[in-house]
Amino acid sequence: MTSEERRAIDAKIRRDFPLIYAHPEIAYLDNSATTQKPESVLRAMQHYYLEENANPLRGLYELSVKATEAYEDAREAVREFIHAASHEEIIFTRNATESLNLLAYAATEAFLGEGDEILITIMEHHSNLIPWQQAAARKGAVLKFLEPDEEGYISEEQFRRMLSPKTKLVSMTHISNVLGVKNDVKTFARLAHENGSLFVLDGAQSVPHIPVDVADLDVDFLAFSGHKMLAPMGIGVLYGKRDLLLAMPPFLFGGEMIEYVSREKATWAELPHKFEAGTVNVGGAVGLRAAIDYYKQLGWDTILEREAHLSCLAMKKLSAIPHLRVLGPKGGEEHHGIFTFTIEGVHPHDIAAILDADKVNIRAGHHCAQPLMQFMKTPSTTRASFAFYNTEEELDRFVESLRKVRREMGYQE
Amino acid sequence: MTSEERRAIDAKIRRDFPLIYAHPEIAYLDNSATTQKPESVLRAMQHYYLEENANPLRGLYELSVKATEAYEDAREAVREFIHAASHEEIIFTRNATESLNLLAYAATEAFLGEGDEILITIMEHHSNLIPWQQAAARKGAVLKFLEPDEEGYISEEQFRRMLSPKTKLVSMTHISNVLGVKNDVKTFARLAHENGSLFVLDGAQSVPHIPVDVADLDVDFLAFSGHKMLAPMGIGVLYGKRDLLLAMPPFLFGGEMIEYVSREKATWAELPHKFEAGTVNVGGAVGLRAAIDYYKQLGWDTILEREAHLSCLAMKKLSAIPHLRVLGPKGGEEHHGIFTFTIEGVHPHDIAAILDADKVNIRAGHHCAQPLMQFMKTPSTTRASFAFYNTEEELDRFVESLRKVRREMGYQE
Repeated sequence: MTSEERRAIDAKIRRDFPLIYAHPEIAYLDNSATTQKPESVLRAMQHYYLEENANPLRGLYELSVKATEAYEDAREAVREFIHAASHEEIIFTRNATESLNLLAYAATEAFLGEGDEILITIMEHHSNLIPWQQAAARKGAVLKFLEPDEEGYISEEQFRRMLSPKTKLVSMTHISNVLGVKNDVKTFARLAHENGSLFVLDGAQSVPHIPVDVADLDVDFLAFSGHKMLAPMGIGVLYGKRDLLLAMPPFLFGGEMIEYVSREKATWAELPHKFEAGTVNVGGAVGLRAAIDYYKQLGWDTILEREAHLSCLAMKKLSAIPHLRVLGPKGGEEHHGIFTFTIEGVHPHDIAAILDADKVNIRAGHHCAQPLMQFMKTPSTTRASFAFYNTEEELDRFVESLRKVRREMGYQE
Repeated sequence: MTSEERRAIDAKIRRDFPLIYAHPEIAYLDNSATTQKPESVLRAMQHYYLEENANPLRGLYELSVKATEAYEDAREAVREFIHAASHEEIIFTRNATESLNLLAYAATEAFLGEGDEILITIMEHHSNLIPWQQAAARKGAVLKFLEPDEEGYISEEQFRRMLSPKTKLVSMTHISNVLGVKNDVKTFARLAHENGSLFVLDGAQSVPHIPVDVADLDVDFLAFSGHKMLAPMGIGVLYGKRDLLLAMPPFLFGGEMIEYVSREKATWAELPHKFEAGTVNVGGAVGLRAAIDYYKQLGWDTILEREAHLSCLAMKKLSAIPHLRVLGPKGGEEHHGIFTFTIEGVHPHDIAAILDADKVNIRAGHHCAQPLMQFMKTPSTTRASFAFYNTEEELDRFVESLRKVRREMGYQE
């Protein structure tokens, strides 16, 4: 592809994102935290509130039926997007964090006993760590940690070694929000199943960036957030295999998730409603559906090509900056758009502040992964994360700004 | 006020609500389930995603700072709206159901022991019943029920009688979503406190319809939903007194709610963040803030006058329909816009269907209050619920449609 062709696609895509289009001065490189929203997503939500808004599921009038259809159509779009077998396997939550909390409560209630082991990795986001810490403490289970090599990879050998007859559940991120590495989920899920263990996938950083097929990967559960994949805040998903969800108790209790209630007890509604207590977020689900439509319309080929191109280029350019060290894989493409780095002698907050002055938006801190930071002996780092709507020009501005950092902090070179 | 004056205000208000304005053929009378949204709320959300969208709270760039301000300004607006003492006392949740689940988990963990009693009423929405059933089962506590009189009122005498030295917690709806009655919360909260019991208020049906002042009522906790008070779906609130929230463990675990995390354990962030795990719903909070602004701009005087006027008129007109029986108070104003009724010999679903043909939107079923339905020996009913934007003309269409119901079902009169 020529630079000219690429810039033409850049321009076409960026017209779809009103905030980006209206603010060309901003280089938004914090996509692992949240993405910007295409106009089609904002329009879909607006349309819902202008034409279809009502409390769905139990209403017997046209507006409520429309709201129900909008909601269940969104569920079907999610099902298709991740290749789940049935709409019963798609639970709408608030975000990946809630999905993982639901799971760490309900799956451990159903499947975990005293002395059992939960196996996670040291690179987990706190959302896929603390819920399991709590579950382990509650159930008298043991939490064990897989540790990556220097580039961030967990080997099959280590995985086999850490599995034990007591391992009831493995939970793992698909793509690390710090290192950008992709775990070999298909292999790990197969090994877990051969061992009789359940396999949970945190897809918060993968579902927005690569096609995730739960049937092909054969994971038992998958959690992800809408807001990191072009959808509004406040909507997320938990996928679970039907027979497992059936065996699990509900997590939240209230309207819509019950079948029968007396003073003393209650019985639960069918899947997926059993796990969706209270008035559901139809507006959010409609936004997520529009986001999925955007992905489908742009196409994975384009998205993957653009993110790989930016990742390779970013690695090349960052590697050429003196005193800058990128954490994780040596290969650019293996970063999946996520570059966490340090600059010798400069605090990450100072890096972020200097870049902010140039309107380059990145993140500094522990990235909600303190145990990984401790493991890597770098308590605080800076992270830039790219999406398919980012451009070479933004990358150049980012790199140019980085080159000034040490100078601005008073270093001679 | 003359009819002409009233119609002028009707027209002014209805111009603010695009769905209602665009669909004058619909009489939307399902406001206890969810309300329609004013244009200002949709515009505020749109503005957020067009100009301020980023992951808030930990960002060091301008967009993230703006998102943080938008989010915390919304919290401050909620604080002021319900007269809480501090922003630390306002927790954003998804909806009232989640607020009550959070509480039924975290407050019972902190304050409830085996053999203790939880006192609720038989008129609670399932969301304020099942979480306590579950908590009671988990902690070996006893769930006890207050029962209303024929009009729906719980007497001070009964309340005193049901309190015991073992009563650790009382939870009660402010306004019943079925009967429309308002419980005498100020008195009950005082009696509960004199007894050493905590007092939880379910404000899902009150906060949207009457001024609710947590300082004046002196309740310990208050739960409510945004979507029932002009705000988008997916945002709700839990108010709690600071010292109590400080003593409670977190409910959901993950990003933003931690201070320090190691492999084995974690410590929690300050209030209110301790209870807000994962990426927060800034767009939803901004929508709720705009909804509160709308309430303030229109003013409680206008809102209360309009809802009282419609309630009185509705009671008068419904009482004149043969074979129709309204549940709850005899006085119209005491219904706070909520009219649940039966028509002799006609199933509520048939009533809803006939009214739907006339574009009158009401709800039929158990209204997520099965124990109350059992108590009142009416397993299924029909409910119309008014908001300040409803009009006499809509009420008349509703009544006219109701008058046809028995005829259409083949009755002679």
